Amino acid sequence: MDTPLVTERGAARAGSADGASKVRVAVAGASGFAGQELLRLMSGHPRARITAAMSSSPDGPPRTLPALAKIWDGVIEPFSASRLAEAADVVFLALPEEAAAAIAPTLVERGVRVIDLSGAFRLRDAAAREKWYPATKLGSLKPVYGLTERHYDEIAGAQLLTNPGCYPTAALLALEPLAEAGLLAGDIVIDAKSGISGAGKKPSDRTHFSENHGSVSAYGVFGHRHQPEIEQELGAAVTFVPHLVPLDRGILETIYGKVRPGTTANEVAEVMTAAYRKAPFVRLTGETLPEIKHAAYTNFCDIGWRVDQSGRGVIVSVIDNLLKGASGQAVQNLNVMLGLDERLGLW
Amino acid sequence: MDTPLVTERGAARAGSADGASKVRVAVAGASGFAGQELLRLMSGHPRARITAAMSSSPDGPPRTLPALAKIWDGVIEPFSASRLAEAADVVFLALPEEAAAAIAPTLVERGVRVIDLSGAFRLRDAAAREKWYPATKLGSLKPVYGLTERHYDEIAGAQLLTNPGCYPTAALLALEPLAEAGLLAGDIVIDAKSGISGAGKKPSDRTHFSENHGSVSAYGVFGHRHQPEIEQELGAAVTFVPHLVPLDRGILETIYGKVRPGTTANEVAEVMTAAYRKAPFVRLTGETLPEIKHAAYTNFCDIGWRVDQSGRGVIVSVIDNLLKGASGQAVQNLNVMLGLDERLGLW
Amino acid sequence: MDTPLVTERGAARAGSADGASKVRVAVAGASGFAGQELLRLMSGHPRARITAAMSSSPDGPPRTLPALAKIWDGVIEPFSASRLAEAADVVFLALPEEAAAAIAPTLVERGVRVIDLSGAFRLRDAAAREKWYPATKLGSLKPVYGLTERHYDEIAGAQLLTNPGCYPTAALLALEPLAEAGLLAGDIVIDAKSGISGAGKKPSDRTHFSENHGSVSAYGVFGHRHQPEIEQELGAAVTFVPHLVPLDRGILETIYGKVRPGTTANEVAEVMTAAYRKAPFVRLTGETLPEIKHAAYTNFCDIGWRVDQSGRGVIVSVIDNLLKGASGQAVQNLNVMLGLDERLGLW
Amino acid sequence: MDTPLVTERGAARAGSADGASKVRVAVAGASGFAGQELLRLMSGHPRARITAAMSSSPDGPPRTLPALAKIWDGVIEPFSASRLAEAADVVFLALPEEAAAAIAPTLVERGVRVIDLSGAFRLRDAAAREKWYPATKLGSLKPVYGLTERHYDEIAGAQLLTNPGCYPTAALLALEPLAEAGLLAGDIVIDAKSGISGAGKKPSDRTHFSENHGSVSAYGVFGHRHQPEIEQELGAAVTFVPHLVPLDRGILETIYGKVRPGTTANEVAEVMTAAYRKAPFVRLTGETLPEIKHAAYTNFCDIGWRVDQSGRGVIVSVIDNLLKGASGQAVQNLNVMLGLDERLGLW
Repeated sequence: MDTPLVTERGAARAGSADGASKVRVAVAGASGFAGQELLRLMSGHPRARITAAMSSSPDGPPRTLPALAKIWDGVIEPFSASRLAEAADVVFLALPEEAAAAIAPTLVERGVRVIDLSGAFRLRDAAAREKWYPATKLGSLKPVYGLTERHYDEIAGAQLLTNPGCYPTAALLALEPLAEAGLLAGDIVIDAKSGISGAGKKPSDRTHFSENHGSVSAYGVFGHRHQPEIEQELGAAVTFVPHLVPLDRGILETIYGKVRPGTTANEVAEVMTAAYRKAPFVRLTGETLPEIKHAAYTNFCDIGWRVDQSGRGVIVSVIDNLLKGASGQAVQNLNVMLGLDERLGLW
Repeated sequence: MDTPLVTERGAARAGSADGASKVRVAVAGASGFAGQELLRLMSGHPRARITAAMSSSPDGPPRTLPALAKIWDGVIEPFSASRLAEAADVVFLALPEEAAAAIAPTLVERGVRVIDLSGAFRLRDAAAREKWYPATKLGSLKPVYGLTERHYDEIAGAQLLTNPGCYPTAALLALEPLAEAGLLAGDIVIDAKSGISGAGKKPSDRTHFSENHGSVSAYGVFGHRHQPEIEQELGAAVTFVPHLVPLDRGILETIYGKVRPGTTANEVAEVMTAAYRKAPFVRLTGETLPEIKHAAYTNFCDIGWRVDQSGRGVIVSVIDNLLKGASGQAVQNLNVMLGLDERLGLW
Repeated sequence: MDTPLVTERGAARAGSADGASKVRVAVAGASGFAGQELLRLMSGHPRARITAAMSSSPDGPPRTLPALAKIWDGVIEPFSASRLAEAADVVFLALPEEAAAAIAPTLVERGVRVIDLSGAFRLRDAAAREKWYPATKLGSLKPVYGLTERHYDEIAGAQLLTNPGCYPTAALLALEPLAEAGLLAGDIVIDAKSGISGAGKKPSDRTHFSENHGSVSAYGVFGHRHQPEIEQELGAAVTFVPHLVPLDRGILETIYGKVRPGTTANEVAEVMTAAYRKAPFVRLTGETLPEIKHAAYTNFCDIGWRVDQSGRGVIVSVIDNLLKGASGQAVQNLNVMLGLDERLGLW
Repeated sequence: MDTPLVTERGAARAGSADGASKVRVAVAGASGFAGQELLRLMSGHPRARITAAMSSSPDGPPRTLPALAKIWDGVIEPFSASRLAEAADVVFLALPEEAAAAIAPTLVERGVRVIDLSGAFRLRDAAAREKWYPATKLGSLKPVYGLTERHYDEIAGAQLLTNPGCYPTAALLALEPLAEAGLLAGDIVIDAKSGISGAGKKPSDRTHFSENHGSVSAYGVFGHRHQPEIEQELGAAVTFVPHLVPLDRGILETIYGKVRPGTTANEVAEVMTAAYRKAPFVRLTGETLPEIKHAAYTNFCDIGWRVDQSGRGVIVSVIDNLLKGASGQAVQNLNVMLGLDERLGLW
């Protein structure tokens, strides 16, 4: 850990006696998995303070979160768009996509910066957006795609930041540097394994313990909306099949492709190392392929790879779906938007 | 395995060309966990055939069970009381207790023998029954409590058999012989650990994968209706606390008590061995305490124990909650009711 | 279930009073996961009886298997090649490959039929065999590759049957009919997810609970010996990456490939249906992709598929690695070798 | 979170440019589960720095910990007692008890403060210590029992701090205030459920994934050395049975006892609230019983309780076995020993 963070934090702590000098942030959709992670992370952030936490519904009584006792002891209020705009300088939207699509334009118009964890604003192609996120009306909004390590500059100035999907985060951090360097050739297959928290907090047959314990299941074959998101950012077609595996948190993606003839594992290593030299949250593991266990409960993306003599390549990319795949990356983006060290609240 | 079963099966197979000679059984509530197990077990039963399988609701389309493809390829119909009475000689009720309470009297009246897996008819004390199972109207019904190994004779003649609860099955098989022999002294504590299938097939916060993975939780403290059931059969008060543990199938109960001064582990062994000498589904493990793994997916109840010099006793009793704790024991009871080898369809 | 099995079983039961008329089978390596499954399955087989069960070592005391109490109550003896040859008509070898390579020729020479669950005799190419199974000396042996559904006729006459690997079983049952029909085009990627029992019973960092709980890990990239086995049988190169997923039993393989231009899901369905019309242990699930849960603890291989308009195909194939992937298929092969209904002991 | 911690941390960060002003700490036994947690926690501690990390063996090459990449990128050296004494002001011993018993006296003699995570110095009764920890020679050592919330003052001055066992931590935090207030009457039963990481990092049959997945097992009945530790601190006999449950991290203890006649849940609440008013790491959940999920990956001990009208009491106490049950509490004790806010490095 180098000096800047420490200094930053020292400064932050020094200033913290005066809470008013901190950035005011709000979380809408605070009861879900991603929302609770946001509260947990932001309650320890030295330069921001939570000024409102709201559920995704305007109805129902205020509630507390016993799981966060002594970490965040606030109250989750019913959803109120007007109060949201007044209470915060930056708003995290951890809402269903329709709700996010409805509220984001209003917030931006009122000068609030928005970090949207739903997919509502991720697709730039109008037809694709209409297909996958029909509730979204883009208007004059200019969403910035917040894959932090790849878009620092645009993120810094974003009014509406669209936080990447969990699967695209792991896939794009692994593939973009190689694509940019022209090392990829031919078809790409992404076989993704996700913990059940990725299916959300709502009880269903799909999230029932007994359906998943001792089981693995593929879903969304040829029909998952993270596929167009990956293809948009990568600029290439991919075959993408997500699976549910019997664990709570974490995604491992095994990515299959061909490399340009003659490319070695060393060249892959050079490209990847160059790409993430300054990235505190990307860990390159080389030929030792990463496992979910080591990235779970962290904001790291761990990436390893193998290349054989015939040019077949296998890349394994791992994240915690609720942190680097959602709330952690959202906080990382907040830091970049505020000109802070990107590690604040995450280390 | 001794001769009788083999002969029985040989006979059964020989007779099976003529399906009409088999006992006709129906399953009501066939979509739930217990219902599906009943279909799976009964589809391999040599002396009975499934003549109707119904859901617990009169509405909705007929459905099939892909998980049972090539095992049981029948159709689950909407619930119909009249068709149930016509279709079967014996009906398994794997229904919610209110539904079981409503339909059982009619079936018995029409001469159909009933094996009820709900708790509706388990409690004999009117006040207790009114408290825990208010929908039940006993009328002239004489339910027989179907803890197979303890009540063979009554079970043989039962018109309405009430299948024991999962927790009581494990507790009573462990405790009844010792209580009968007068070896127990003082308070009894039953700490039960159950897999999530025990919470049923309906999705809820309680059955969500993410709530249970990596977790253990106590529930129903001083308020679980299996406690009066255990106390009724045992004739003694117990402290009973069930817990959910992160696995699918199986219950392990750790039972704490005092033994009569001077009682040794050997004496416990003698009493238990005598009690279950002819019981094919009780396995006594002595001082090697049983584990869920070995009883899961079987109809066994495995029981082990330790006694220390000061008279403290610890008994561990293990079953599969869906088999010996529900559908397996129901089939075992069917066999006894029909005068067949109790192992048919279960071995 | 059709008539033959019933008749067969009826006959078997009728004959069972005279144990001597049953085929004598022995299990070498009976303490491992596959060995214990063999004992469990064969103890219920109507036409064979276990005449010897041996560990993989000539040393150590005889032992019993508490987990199989009342199912198989025999004793596992130390390994003895000479006793093995005398005791049985058919021997299952569930031994490490070196031990299997050493003992199989002797047994065959002495007229004993051998079903080898190790990989020692799977590879026909001498160079490949020398690389992956250096201990194997083929001599005049003619091993028959026992993928039951694909090689009934050869299996019927086998003296030395080499039981397929778990990963190849799931892959080949899914791919062979399509390859044969000429429907496959281009590269094939097999992404396999296996439960931890596939890593064997020996404790290691790799099989430690804490290393796997909440985790997924890839292994053996470009270096797993099941890859040449798949390629040998399929006659085509594949990219194969196995993963460990946090469950005990079961394999799910997601297979990616291109189909011949214009091929539809319906054509795939026709080919698969034709291939497995008479196969009791293959269940085709069509566009509803199979899950591990439904095949675990059974001898089924469940296969589903999707084909998109651009010719990309995804096949999902699921088995229980200890049953259809090892001991179940071994018993199925025994049945075919003995001219019995292939379902005996498995249904 | 109140002001002191913030101030503390601010000061710590401010001073951190000069690493030399930080307390030097070493970890012996750094490769095990507890050791790795210590490295992870201490690498983020603002007032201390890791100056040595050693394995438990003097042999073998130095190694790194890929799982801690970018968190702690140091090297684990072979064990060296002399270097340990030179390198650090405070040494954490995460060693086997025999090794801890051997090295602790030397370190204390040389003026190094020791925090011992093994059990070597926990028992004060000579006979009990000789029975359970025969390698320990106490000599003139005066170990302080480090149940932080109960012994702040003694801990502050400790030269040799013996960190409590994981099971005793959860049990004693729940029971000590009630015992002190005279609310307990009669026998106490502690039924403990622990994740598999509690069985240590060494591969064995007991820690094999397949032995634990889908299973629960009791162990150490009447023979676990945490029982005399609990009895010593509580001053009363208890029946204690630990179980392994299929999860990685966390302990839930269900404690059964009688309360003094007439005692209500409210009185229990008052006593507990008074006891932990200033304790940042104890969360009282009242009648809402705590679950492992909420305490895992934190240093909290969560405690809830129920009392019925007949005086039966059930207390549920939950911790993360590697944090509050080992390394977290060790760091908490370090803070108290150094006169720092007890939350440093843990929040």
